[in-house]
Amino acid sequence: MIEYERREAGRGSGFILWFTGMSGAGKSTLAKAVRRELEPVCSVEILDGDEVRTFLSRGLGFTRADREENLRRIGYVARLLARHRVAVITAAISPYRDARDELRRLAAESSIPFIEVYAQARLESLIDRDVKGLYKKALAGEIPHFTGISDPYEPPESPDVVVRTDEETVGDGVARILSALRERGLLSRG
Amino acid sequence: MIEYERREAGRGSGFILWFTGMSGAGKSTLAKAVRRELEPVCSVEILDGDEVRTFLSRGLGFTRADREENLRRIGYVARLLARHRVAVITAAISPYRDARDELRRLAAESSIPFIEVYAQARLESLIDRDVKGLYKKALAGEIPHFTGISDPYEPPESPDVVVRTDEETVGDGVARILSALRERGLLSRG
Repeated sequence: MIEYERREAGRGSGFILWFTGMSGAGKSTLAKAVRRELEPVCSVEILDGDEVRTFLSRGLGFTRADREENLRRIGYVARLLARHRVAVITAAISPYRDARDELRRLAAESSIPFIEVYAQARLESLIDRDVKGLYKKALAGEIPHFTGISDPYEPPESPDVVVRTDEETVGDGVARILSALRERGLLSRG
Repeated sequence: MIEYERREAGRGSGFILWFTGMSGAGKSTLAKAVRRELEPVCSVEILDGDEVRTFLSRGLGFTRADREENLRRIGYVARLLARHRVAVITAAISPYRDARDELRRLAAESSIPFIEVYAQARLESLIDRDVKGLYKKALAGEIPHFTGISDPYEPPESPDVVVRTDEETVGDGVARILSALRERGLLSRG
């Protein structure tokens, strides 16, 4: 494993690695793999979509307004943590382009680096794998507002990193994400 | 000013200073004054009741269930931050004993020191001062669920620190809070 040394840049040296991608596209898997690489060199926190829904967004549903509110809350907590030098990794679907752009803008206002990572996979391969059995249910009409089936997913237009999770290994994806962090000066080779 | 040196105790060295007390009792004033003392030695974050309501609890009202949910969310964010060595100061009314005890229990489960500070003032003096003009409105029946008037406030039975904000100066209160932190080994004289 390559050794990294975290740049010392005072209080503002955390960052937000914001994953977006459909259910089952590998956001959580990539998030955990990135955390393993970062943990030896800095404080890391994953804000997972499901966990956040339990603790911060009980009562919110999956309408556009509720999803946007959920993302705003994740963004608020992510900025709080990043302000205290934490490397924050979010792993919620984040289906709306405008909402993601707003999060990027708010991070910039607080001088917090914001790296958008698109976990991309063809819908057919997600339906084929269907790890949690959700696509089957959604296709049968049993889950309303299911992203990619009965609800929109708006792919990012210029993400900082794209990982083709249906075509490449987790290790390849992680390597490219770490490269992006290094290019931004958020990690430097030790 | 006395110099403090933050105990180095690895990742678990943050803590939660949880204020409770009625509207106008001086929670925010004390919180800011404590922050000024702590900032030279550690990362500090104030989670203010009003700010949290805007960012995390839009849509929640002031019923018992909604207030409890609001406190749970503040508690969740406070634990996240404290896990990353942040000294977290919360300044929400936190009127319910059970809810506060639950927060203390959850902090203990995560090995996070939890210090409950009761900002105590006689109701008459809060009504006299009425800094925000809220008591006048509440007494006129214009604010439903107003703590201490039309909604209960359950004082802590064994708070870690009591500050009599109607009888002592901010400086005296801050000194006692810092003493409590020192006694717990969370700050030590430099």
